[in-house]
Amino acid sequence: MEKPILIRVHPQDNVEIVVNEKGIPAGTLIHDQLVAREHIPQSHKIALKDFAAEEEIIRYGEVIGYAKEPIAKGSWIDEHKVRLPQAPELEALPVATRIPAEQSPLLGYTFQGYKNPDGTVGTKNMLGITTTVQCVEGVLRIAVEELKALLPRYPHVDGIIPMYHSYGCGVAINAPDAVIPIRTIKNLAENPNLGGELLMVGLGCEKLVPERLFLDIPQDNLVLLQESMGFRPMVEEIKAKAVKILERLNTRRREVCPASDLVVGLQCGGSDAFSGVTANPALGYAADLLVRAGATVLFSEVSEVRDGVHLLTPRTISAEVGQKMKDEMAWYDHYLDLGSVDRDANPTPGNKKGGLANVVEKSLGSIAKSGTSPIVDVLSAGEKVRKKGLTFAATPASDFVCGTCQLASGITLQVFSTGRGTPYGLAMAPVIKVSTRTELATKWHDLIDINAGTIATGEATIESVGTDLFHYILAVASGEKKTWADQWGIENALCLFNPAPVT
Amino acid sequence: MEKPILIRVHPQDNVEIVVNEKGIPAGTLIHDQLVAREHIPQSHKIALKDFAAEEEIIRYGEVIGYAKEPIAKGSWIDEHKVRLPQAPELEALPVATRIPAEQSPLLGYTFQGYKNPDGTVGTKNMLGITTTVQCVEGVLRIAVEELKALLPRYPHVDGIIPMYHSYGCGVAINAPDAVIPIRTIKNLAENPNLGGELLMVGLGCEKLVPERLFLDIPQDNLVLLQESMGFRPMVEEIKAKAVKILERLNTRRREVCPASDLVVGLQCGGSDAFSGVTANPALGYAADLLVRAGATVLFSEVSEVRDGVHLLTPRTISAEVGQKMKDEMAWYDHYLDLGSVDRDANPTPGNKKGGLANVVEKSLGSIAKSGTSPIVDVLSAGEKVRKKGLTFAATPASDFVCGTCQLASGITLQVFSTGRGTPYGLAMAPVIKVSTRTELATKWHDLIDINAGTIATGEATIESVGTDLFHYILAVASGEKKTWADQWGIENALCLFNPAPVT
Ligand SMILES: [Ca+2]
Ligand SMILES: [Ca+2]
Ligand SMILES: [Ca+2]
Ligand SMILES: [Ca+2]
Ligand SMILES: [Ca+2]
Repeated sequence: MEKPILIRVHPQDNVEIVVNEKGIPAGTLIHDQLVAREHIPQSHKIALKDFAAEEEIIRYGEVIGYAKEPIAKGSWIDEHKVRLPQAPELEALPVATRIPAEQSPLLGYTFQGYKNPDGTVGTKNMLGITTTVQCVEGVLRIAVEELKALLPRYPHVDGIIPMYHSYGCGVAINAPDAVIPIRTIKNLAENPNLGGELLMVGLGCEKLVPERLFLDIPQDNLVLLQESMGFRPMVEEIKAKAVKILERLNTRRREVCPASDLVVGLQCGGSDAFSGVTANPALGYAADLLVRAGATVLFSEVSEVRDGVHLLTPRTISAEVGQKMKDEMAWYDHYLDLGSVDRDANPTPGNKKGGLANVVEKSLGSIAKSGTSPIVDVLSAGEKVRKKGLTFAATPASDFVCGTCQLASGITLQVFSTGRGTPYGLAMAPVIKVSTRTELATKWHDLIDINAGTIATGEATIESVGTDLFHYILAVASGEKKTWADQWGIENALCLFNPAPVT
Repeated sequence: MEKPILIRVHPQDNVEIVVNEKGIPAGTLIHDQLVAREHIPQSHKIALKDFAAEEEIIRYGEVIGYAKEPIAKGSWIDEHKVRLPQAPELEALPVATRIPAEQSPLLGYTFQGYKNPDGTVGTKNMLGITTTVQCVEGVLRIAVEELKALLPRYPHVDGIIPMYHSYGCGVAINAPDAVIPIRTIKNLAENPNLGGELLMVGLGCEKLVPERLFLDIPQDNLVLLQESMGFRPMVEEIKAKAVKILERLNTRRREVCPASDLVVGLQCGGSDAFSGVTANPALGYAADLLVRAGATVLFSEVSEVRDGVHLLTPRTISAEVGQKMKDEMAWYDHYLDLGSVDRDANPTPGNKKGGLANVVEKSLGSIAKSGTSPIVDVLSAGEKVRKKGLTFAATPASDFVCGTCQLASGITLQVFSTGRGTPYGLAMAPVIKVSTRTELATKWHDLIDINAGTIATGEATIESVGTDLFHYILAVASGEKKTWADQWGIENALCLFNPAPVT
């Protein structure tokens, strides 16, 4: 029989996680004091003691729930045996009470980036095409198809990104929450990977008028289809204006830039119980290195952070930033209430199959991505990043909505951890995919960039994988290494966060 | 000077609409009793009398608003001079009180359609690929690209439609309103233009599990990416399963079917003041012909129907159907309330520029599409059509959301009227675009299929354009004529209606 491998994250934990791929069979002798009473699947929890009903179940040194019934030592603690605790009461949370001390700066790290006129630096050199409304999409698709055929003439341009979305008309443009999708569209247009250039395609009668995004757009940068004399003239006008920008973009070259010019987004998707033990702590370690090198790091996913927010508010650098974090949580609580949604709606069937009993356990694993740095700022969904260091960008956890919001905030690269596995990719920025388990990295050898599963088996450490990831980020940002998603051209569509009604 | 042309729709109207392309200049003598006091733009309203403040402004024989201030005869009545009336109180509305008499049946009309095993009939023969979650989109795009290169081997197949959407995970799957996007995805998969075949691509850990859409999906019809050994195997599995279906689809041929097998959706977008005078009444006339021929006709757009609903509830065939119509209106009122949205949020800047002062005026023009038949059924968003005859399918007015919901309801062809102009097209069904003005049809000669602007100038009548449209529908449904959108391949993305929160 295979040797049983189990991991415990915190000395106070009264559960451990099974590492073995096939789980451990009933009767497995784990050590003198512990025998598995039943089959326990990989990444699921075993009881280290006898639990009375209502006794605390502790993981990460935190209460992840209460035993619904007595649970005997050596049993499998699956989701049905765990009662969800209350979400932390927001008002009472301490803010800025345990601001981490500044870590020693990491000097001398650089990457090869594209410098923009506004001081930002891109990791790619792409033509972005902003749309004001979905009405233009059918025509723009055809123009982009024809433009892509011209790309060999512009070898220094990495690609063309039409920003399709379903916003712009048939929406409540003056609803209080309309500010979210509108600023997201605007800020996406200014992502550093788009070189400071603007090309906008609108219809002409939509609610989201171009001037609501940018004042005084020069004629060279704007196409309004209703001003065209038919379909082919529309396509030709888009192409002519795009080609002028492609010519300018093609003259750009990478230059040595300090690592502090990087803006890196962190995300997880398809999580399992290893996410919080292997991949996310490694992301957190890399995040700390990036912050020490002066870079900007964003972590997100409100509904996953909500149940661990009491661990984050003390790390905010001021009462103001702490309050902003509480405000974002409260906004989301209210938003879910309006839709009659339970907060435990976040974990997916895959999460639960992967051993995450509930949103609390998922949260504690998710926030491991944030590392140990002070939280210097909190952004609302789609707001532009304002400070170097670690920022909480409040976005939904949905991989596509979070990715879109982080791109609007200005990330130029994303690191994405996955346990169950997703082939996720973004057109606008490279996505480095980190697996939580070795089995996934082996099976998806042509999709997973970094394997953090070696941390669970003892072949590597959080520090070693985190350091590798840090160096990999610099190489990908420099265009020296290509992520698998970029290698294959795997691109998920943008997905705006629009909490306001459609009409 | 050009001869002034004005139109009045109803004898009780106290305003008329300017037809002349450049409007009419101040001082224009319209007739003995009427002189334009100021420049009045095309499709805008002129006052036929002196209005006291708060006096009723009447168009279509209905009150579209009240004069905010005294308005002198011959003045331009622009949106700023019109106060919005109250929306009709739903509870008090009479239902089934003026059920139109059945019109004489139209016999002998047929089209060449594709007969499906379930008795429905398609106007196209396409391979649809259902997705359970956006995670699969990046991989599926690449597989579809490669499949399209194989299409020349299947000359009787009209195309491949991957159904990308942003639903499936990161959403509140158990929220009360989640039923809407879920049934839409399911019913889209069963659209008659997809030949009764099913191919579904899922990830494996998403919230929208395949079994929630269809029970017992055979292995040949389902691909779960997490079961694949990497990227290329995913692509190959999708292609292999798709090719089997393409082979079956390629054996299908069109057959003569009665016109009663047609399911036609009606929509308007980019409306102007002519929409309700030319194009929409012509659509209404064609709708009556279709109903007389035994076909199914859907009209939609709740937020545009809301202010004219008092004209529709009396036409419902039973108290039950009338109540369902009220319930749908009430649901939407509540939905807009939750988002703090004003009901007059529907008209766009383009609508207003086009002479539509408010949502009431827009509504009265919009419901002209429904013709004069009894309303036999009311569907909630994305529900499948149940009856032949005229059905109100309650959807948002957004062109893409409405189009997607109507496709889920089972339309096999859409007729789309536009005043300001939009290049709208759907992948899943042909879209016939009807312009409200001759100028648009001339300018967009390669986008507009039918010009209803001739009705305003007296060159044609509602009856003649409506009859032409009826014949054109049969020809397009038969594959004998191609719409401009299909000619160019103009395809707007699907857009699900998801009123529930994202997480
Ligand atoms: Ca996550
Ligand atoms: Ca996520
Ligand atoms: Ca399978
Ligand atoms: Ca409309
Ligand atoms: Ca519409």
